[in-house]
Amino acid sequence: MTLISTLTDKQEVTGFFLVKELDVKQTNATPPKDYWDLVLADSSGQITAKYWDLKPGEKETLQSLQVAKVHGVAQLYRERLQLKIIRIRPAGPEDGVQLTDYIRAAPVEAKELVAQIRAKVDSIGDPDIRNIAAYCVVKAGDRLEHYPAAKSHHHAYYAGLAYHTVRMLEIGEFLCAQRPFLNRDALIAGIVLHDLAKPEEMNAQLGIVSEYSDRGRLIGHLALISGWIVEAALKLGVPADSPKVTVLQHLVLSHHNLGEWGSPVQPQLAEAVALHYIDSLDAKLQMVEDALGSIPEQEAWTPLIRGLENKAVYRTRF
Amino acid sequence: MTLISTLTDKQEVTGFFLVKELDVKQTNATPPKDYWDLVLADSSGQITAKYWDLKPGEKETLQSLQVAKVHGVAQLYRERLQLKIIRIRPAGPEDGVQLTDYIRAAPVEAKELVAQIRAKVDSIGDPDIRNIAAYCVVKAGDRLEHYPAAKSHHHAYYAGLAYHTVRMLEIGEFLCAQRPFLNRDALIAGIVLHDLAKPEEMNAQLGIVSEYSDRGRLIGHLALISGWIVEAALKLGVPADSPKVTVLQHLVLSHHNLGEWGSPVQPQLAEAVALHYIDSLDAKLQMVEDALGSIPEQEAWTPLIRGLENKAVYRTRF
Amino acid sequence: MTLISTLTDKQEVTGFFLVKELDVKQTNATPPKDYWDLVLADSSGQITAKYWDLKPGEKETLQSLQVAKVHGVAQLYRERLQLKIIRIRPAGPEDGVQLTDYIRAAPVEAKELVAQIRAKVDSIGDPDIRNIAAYCVVKAGDRLEHYPAAKSHHHAYYAGLAYHTVRMLEIGEFLCAQRPFLNRDALIAGIVLHDLAKPEEMNAQLGIVSEYSDRGRLIGHLALISGWIVEAALKLGVPADSPKVTVLQHLVLSHHNLGEWGSPVQPQLAEAVALHYIDSLDAKLQMVEDALGSIPEQEAWTPLIRGLENKAVYRTRF
Amino acid sequence: MTLISTLTDKQEVTGFFLVKELDVKQTNATPPKDYWDLVLADSSGQITAKYWDLKPGEKETLQSLQVAKVHGVAQLYRERLQLKIIRIRPAGPEDGVQLTDYIRAAPVEAKELVAQIRAKVDSIGDPDIRNIAAYCVVKAGDRLEHYPAAKSHHHAYYAGLAYHTVRMLEIGEFLCAQRPFLNRDALIAGIVLHDLAKPEEMNAQLGIVSEYSDRGRLIGHLALISGWIVEAALKLGVPADSPKVTVLQHLVLSHHNLGEWGSPVQPQLAEAVALHYIDSLDAKLQMVEDALGSIPEQEAWTPLIRGLENKAVYRTRF
Amino acid sequence: MTLISTLTDKQEVTGFFLVKELDVKQTNATPPKDYWDLVLADSSGQITAKYWDLKPGEKETLQSLQVAKVHGVAQLYRERLQLKIIRIRPAGPEDGVQLTDYIRAAPVEAKELVAQIRAKVDSIGDPDIRNIAAYCVVKAGDRLEHYPAAKSHHHAYYAGLAYHTVRMLEIGEFLCAQRPFLNRDALIAGIVLHDLAKPEEMNAQLGIVSEYSDRGRLIGHLALISGWIVEAALKLGVPADSPKVTVLQHLVLSHHNLGEWGSPVQPQLAEAVALHYIDSLDAKLQMVEDALGSIPEQEAWTPLIRGLENKAVYRTRF
Amino acid sequence: MTLISTLTDKQEVTGFFLVKELDVKQTNATPPKDYWDLVLADSSGQITAKYWDLKPGEKETLQSLQVAKVHGVAQLYRERLQLKIIRIRPAGPEDGVQLTDYIRAAPVEAKELVAQIRAKVDSIGDPDIRNIAAYCVVKAGDRLEHYPAAKSHHHAYYAGLAYHTVRMLEIGEFLCAQRPFLNRDALIAGIVLHDLAKPEEMNAQLGIVSEYSDRGRLIGHLALISGWIVEAALKLGVPADSPKVTVLQHLVLSHHNLGEWGSPVQPQLAEAVALHYIDSLDAKLQMVEDALGSIPEQEAWTPLIRGLENKAVYRTRF
Repeated sequence: MTLISTLTDKQEVTGFFLVKELDVKQTNATPPKDYWDLVLADSSGQITAKYWDLKPGEKETLQSLQVAKVHGVAQLYRERLQLKIIRIRPAGPEDGVQLTDYIRAAPVEAKELVAQIRAKVDSIGDPDIRNIAAYCVVKAGDRLEHYPAAKSHHHAYYAGLAYHTVRMLEIGEFLCAQRPFLNRDALIAGIVLHDLAKPEEMNAQLGIVSEYSDRGRLIGHLALISGWIVEAALKLGVPADSPKVTVLQHLVLSHHNLGEWGSPVQPQLAEAVALHYIDSLDAKLQMVEDALGSIPEQEAWTPLIRGLENKAVYRTRF
Repeated sequence: MTLISTLTDKQEVTGFFLVKELDVKQTNATPPKDYWDLVLADSSGQITAKYWDLKPGEKETLQSLQVAKVHGVAQLYRERLQLKIIRIRPAGPEDGVQLTDYIRAAPVEAKELVAQIRAKVDSIGDPDIRNIAAYCVVKAGDRLEHYPAAKSHHHAYYAGLAYHTVRMLEIGEFLCAQRPFLNRDALIAGIVLHDLAKPEEMNAQLGIVSEYSDRGRLIGHLALISGWIVEAALKLGVPADSPKVTVLQHLVLSHHNLGEWGSPVQPQLAEAVALHYIDSLDAKLQMVEDALGSIPEQEAWTPLIRGLENKAVYRTRF
Repeated sequence: MTLISTLTDKQEVTGFFLVKELDVKQTNATPPKDYWDLVLADSSGQITAKYWDLKPGEKETLQSLQVAKVHGVAQLYRERLQLKIIRIRPAGPEDGVQLTDYIRAAPVEAKELVAQIRAKVDSIGDPDIRNIAAYCVVKAGDRLEHYPAAKSHHHAYYAGLAYHTVRMLEIGEFLCAQRPFLNRDALIAGIVLHDLAKPEEMNAQLGIVSEYSDRGRLIGHLALISGWIVEAALKLGVPADSPKVTVLQHLVLSHHNLGEWGSPVQPQLAEAVALHYIDSLDAKLQMVEDALGSIPEQEAWTPLIRGLENKAVYRTRF
Repeated sequence: MTLISTLTDKQEVTGFFLVKELDVKQTNATPPKDYWDLVLADSSGQITAKYWDLKPGEKETLQSLQVAKVHGVAQLYRERLQLKIIRIRPAGPEDGVQLTDYIRAAPVEAKELVAQIRAKVDSIGDPDIRNIAAYCVVKAGDRLEHYPAAKSHHHAYYAGLAYHTVRMLEIGEFLCAQRPFLNRDALIAGIVLHDLAKPEEMNAQLGIVSEYSDRGRLIGHLALISGWIVEAALKLGVPADSPKVTVLQHLVLSHHNLGEWGSPVQPQLAEAVALHYIDSLDAKLQMVEDALGSIPEQEAWTPLIRGLENKAVYRTRF
Repeated sequence: MTLISTLTDKQEVTGFFLVKELDVKQTNATPPKDYWDLVLADSSGQITAKYWDLKPGEKETLQSLQVAKVHGVAQLYRERLQLKIIRIRPAGPEDGVQLTDYIRAAPVEAKELVAQIRAKVDSIGDPDIRNIAAYCVVKAGDRLEHYPAAKSHHHAYYAGLAYHTVRMLEIGEFLCAQRPFLNRDALIAGIVLHDLAKPEEMNAQLGIVSEYSDRGRLIGHLALISGWIVEAALKLGVPADSPKVTVLQHLVLSHHNLGEWGSPVQPQLAEAVALHYIDSLDAKLQMVEDALGSIPEQEAWTPLIRGLENKAVYRTRF
Repeated sequence: MTLISTLTDKQEVTGFFLVKELDVKQTNATPPKDYWDLVLADSSGQITAKYWDLKPGEKETLQSLQVAKVHGVAQLYRERLQLKIIRIRPAGPEDGVQLTDYIRAAPVEAKELVAQIRAKVDSIGDPDIRNIAAYCVVKAGDRLEHYPAAKSHHHAYYAGLAYHTVRMLEIGEFLCAQRPFLNRDALIAGIVLHDLAKPEEMNAQLGIVSEYSDRGRLIGHLALISGWIVEAALKLGVPADSPKVTVLQHLVLSHHNLGEWGSPVQPQLAEAVALHYIDSLDAKLQMVEDALGSIPEQEAWTPLIRGLENKAVYRTRF
């Protein structure tokens, strides 16, 4: 099985790939002719592909987010490899392929990540805070197992949201040990909750966000999760204006730090300050790690990374 | 009864005034001596006052937000009038004075304003929107009758919140008539709700904000009223993620327009755009009207107004 | 007569359309071949069109801003309809078509709008202000009847400038009634004058701006209209530094509110504050109304609107 | 005659000084007592002074912007010298003092500066540009001889405006010689005109701005001088929309470079770019030169200078 | 021994305190009379003090940054405690007091902190990086033992710089373990070096910065330490333009992240991104911890903290 | 010899041109076919060119930055001329062409410019400053003879860096004569040094920057030249923290004026203020002069110029 990341110019390949994007386009010929412009992916990366010989009737045989069997040739085009497809067909039951084998995913098993999050929630000492956090985890449902943390900004892959949460929990635990004045219950709950409404904000399958939901665009995941906390409190009988509810709402509402980054209030609790900087630290470092991981080992500079002041990152070597 | 706005230099006055602020300060003498630094107010305006001859035991006889009987002399000090107090005592039942006669208030009766707001809510056609708006008006309670719209920014007086709301409703009705594509139900509800959580955000008496509440500082009135809408939906059995609830949350969350002004999402509905600009128009014009009303008729320029790009306003005369 | 807004995929159509834009382009063939890339328009909207079979000698037969008779087929190309032209020729006198029947225009008759503006000028009580406003309206000439209010930002169609002015005058009258402290003469004159130099700033035909004029780019319509007011005062014998002239200059110079939006001074009159917010309110709501009107009824989201913080607008439905 | 800049602690002095500012203030004593808080100045600098023994009836004997004969003692107060006044009286005709001997002024004679400006105007080759520039110089009148260039920002002294203009003309001539593609007529006229409406924008005597005029606050000196150019063109019969008038208006309107610095249009002519940077260069260097000149030679750092990013300047020594 | 943090109104106290600030001021009396305005400090906090009865000849007996023996009375003045001094004299050898017992200091022994830093430098694997870091630590000298990390922003106390460095090293080690792709040598060296030129940027004694040095104001600690690295490389024979030197210079130059925060380049290495966010996280959390620690336990809100978007911080309690 | 700037539509041309850029691209044909997309240049300007008939084996015969002999036809494509190449081959020794005859260069001979810079360095009175400046000029080496001042921003051609430096030196001398308080040694040295590390920041040949160097991206030319000054001081035995070294470092570090433009410190010396504004003045005027020089004489407007607030410049004509 040839991985995308190992393809070289003029290499012929036959194998299964995820059809991540599929558009029907038209050539500039007169009259124009339909062809497929695709993005094929596997766990090692992705590649642009063209299927010029699209036949009448073939147009409806394939959709995005399916696995397809592909025969083609890799070619350098404007300094980047792309795949010229010779034959392509959707994978069928007889092929015995698993969709999840072909998608980019967090490096830790999704179920394991969710189990760690649940265990952290259980470890919260204060019953009200624990129960509200647990209510929201249940409300997120099994989407927590597969959602990415963002459309493209960072952790944009299968289980990226859970992975981001778990890494932040690790940093959070370290800081609570280093600085005992921090309230661990609040910080753990804040980390678990901070991005938990992303599944209500966007629609995703297989770790790939297709679009933001109407409700997501109109309210945003900060105010959404703040509403979940209100709902949890009402359902659990915790007074909706009690200090604990206020603290949890403050943590999630302020975690983007500044108004221009979407927070209607700025961090005003030690734990809110910690939450914001833990979130930044984990997200930025993951952007760097993923950007370096997605360029060949011998290249020194990544592409520009929007979340890092739109700068490229250089590979330290010594 | 002499009004503060009519006092002139060296004029002696005896009358009742609201003690709006009262601080014990100390002179630079050695040893320092206690005196009272006060702000006295009536319906026509306010004046700084000093009570130099504070006697032992007298310090606890008076508090702010009481009416006091005052005998004193107006004096020019650094180009501004202040009152040198000769005698002062709290008003008692025997004086027969009404606190509310001495405070700055909206030019329309508070009960009348609230009645107009309630009538507008009743006129909303859609039952879910009407019920949610009505629920929130009930939740605001009788504070809607007396709260100001802000601590000092605009409409900072008794019933200022209700007055601001009613004037905006008038503009809203005009615009719905001028542009029938606007959804009147959404716009009317949005206007009623947009500042309705201010009583949860700040603590005020007699139209004077003493401080922001903890919950107000940590969450802000935009996310607070968004939470009220969630609560109303849950209590009324309207699905919390239905389009109507989404629209109402969007209206209140976006009404400050920009992230740096406190809105976590920007207006993305015709009615949200209308709401923001109606709010700005009414607030800014009221700032101007109040600033011009609080300087003597013969003066041309108001003090700097923070809400107007920190500019003074010039009195047009012709 | 088939309207552009009703065309569907594969529909054949013969009819008259305005040639809004016309470019000669070349295919990627070797050797490249000329074709026409057009934008066709009627009162219902516009559509991209291609005329691949451009013949030698045909290139000079047609120009933009003419009506043409077109025979073609609508085709979906990259999810948008465009028209593949089979035959095209300019309309001649024998066709009996009116150019003005094929352009996008304000929903009210241009002459009616200008008559309303003139009537409002006549209603100004102060003779100096009335005469200066009238002088400037005369100077704008018949361009006031057909100019758009902007190149693309808002009211970008035939008589858009007059329509914008009339709607603002309606809001202005409402506010003067609601807030009697406003000086009606100043506000009415300010509204009439604020964008009146746009015809000196840009070159437009049929409501379509082809380009900004040199003088428009170098001075801008705010300083231009301020110069018109100076000229009017000199011609009418009103002292050029009198308070009335100052007020009118201030109103037009400050109506963009902030320096970064092009105003060299910020609003410092009640009427200047009102003018700016009335202008914003009308322009923004028209952007929303036009954006919603230009997408199919069944679509929920408009394209991004630059004048609304570059956000799309969602269609409220209930 | 003792100069202010040479005073030392405990030195007794008798002499004539300009009363630059004079305020009646009151001590914190009970009852408070009136005293004078003054700023005295001569050509070498200025010093704060107190006259504690103000006698009844003496209050009306002196005004600001008069010369007074003063007897007093210099004293260190909070690390700065101030003058404790023992006796003070207005100078009379018998004293034979010249007001202008006691004010801060440009280092070149005012009449000489104005003569240089007039000569530069005469040297403009194009008659229309020359005549418009000359018309505006006449309109500025003899205020050009004594006005400062700003209230406090830079060149804030007698004839500062003319001095700033002359130094800029010197740099302008150098650049025209260095870069012949520059249009000398436009650049010379632009330099002469750029700040010429400052006398309409602010009220000043003896190089000291007391306040901005109403017209200055509402229109600003950029749009004011643009209006003067329109007036000059109309009076001189130059078409008001001709390229030459457009260029002159553009030069003055754009010379602050950015919208947030007050320019409604940005420089779009070579000469407008040159004008802006010559203006900055001369103004900033003068700020530095004046700031270094107003601190004792042995001090290394000036106070913070608002026009230089609010930084202090260090004295280079080697 | 009474601690400042335990003083209450009207309490009389005799003890030793650090004279943190000492100014001679003058009363408003006529003639004015000298008194001392002081800030006294001990390890628990600080308090404003007045010594009204300053006697002739006494003025030169005391200086700031000495320990003094004080007898006085605590008094509430404008809602804050201050100390009215009855008697004060400098501590002498006979008093047997240690200056360092009276200053605010990091919670870990300075020598212990420096030893930890040196040990981390020794643990760097790459000899060039280790030697350059070691060279700079030697160059900082014993100032590393007592310098604060900033004048007032954060860690503004004895050994604050070393404490900040050690806490960051702890976080850095955690992250290197959590994310093995990080280059530990570079990150450890970056943390050690990032603020190491602060002793060249500012003058401090006892953890109290008196002022910035001329060289500090003109160059800043980022470019200063970059210069130290160049010097170290030259002295150690490491090529000054080698990748290792480049990486170290980049780490220190970019650690403020944005140009407006003083970094001439933005982070473009994984370790530079980590360094910036570790620095922010530690500095911000210390600000919060110190702010909460310096208000009484029963108070809920700290004063505004400039480094936290100028927000106050609320004490979480549950 | 036909110059590029004189070519017209359909003109056939044979001659030598510099191959400034050369990319192999592919047509949209099926299968795609390789062609060359080139930019050809001579001293008069540049033109896009296509070589459609690229033959097998021909691909490796030519590289960018070579001179080629070309036979082709100019054709209008999308309103701009481009050259359709019929035959092309690299120039050989037998052609006797000089590469330097075909590149865009400063209008003054490079050696002459460098000689002027060296002479100015020699004229510096202070030996330490002179020696440090001279050391850095030597370190820049012969790259000073040919480097451009920037990749595209300004003076982007052969010897642009030296030309920019020389013109600035001329302005600097004029200002030192006009304002004797300026320290000529510091200003001359500052001008010579300010951009002198550009050859370490970017890689250029023939005045064309191909890319930024790794060290340039990670450190930037401001901190690089600051490091050169440290190195020079160490090598020359001038104390690295002496005032002269501090002043030189400050001059180069602050010359971009603001943090967001890359300066870690803001100008705090008279000479640093002068340096920044001389740099701006020369760079902006050169941008304008070059932009006007690169459009046909009959055109009024240049393209947008990024360094001039992204505005176009208008050609003054009278």
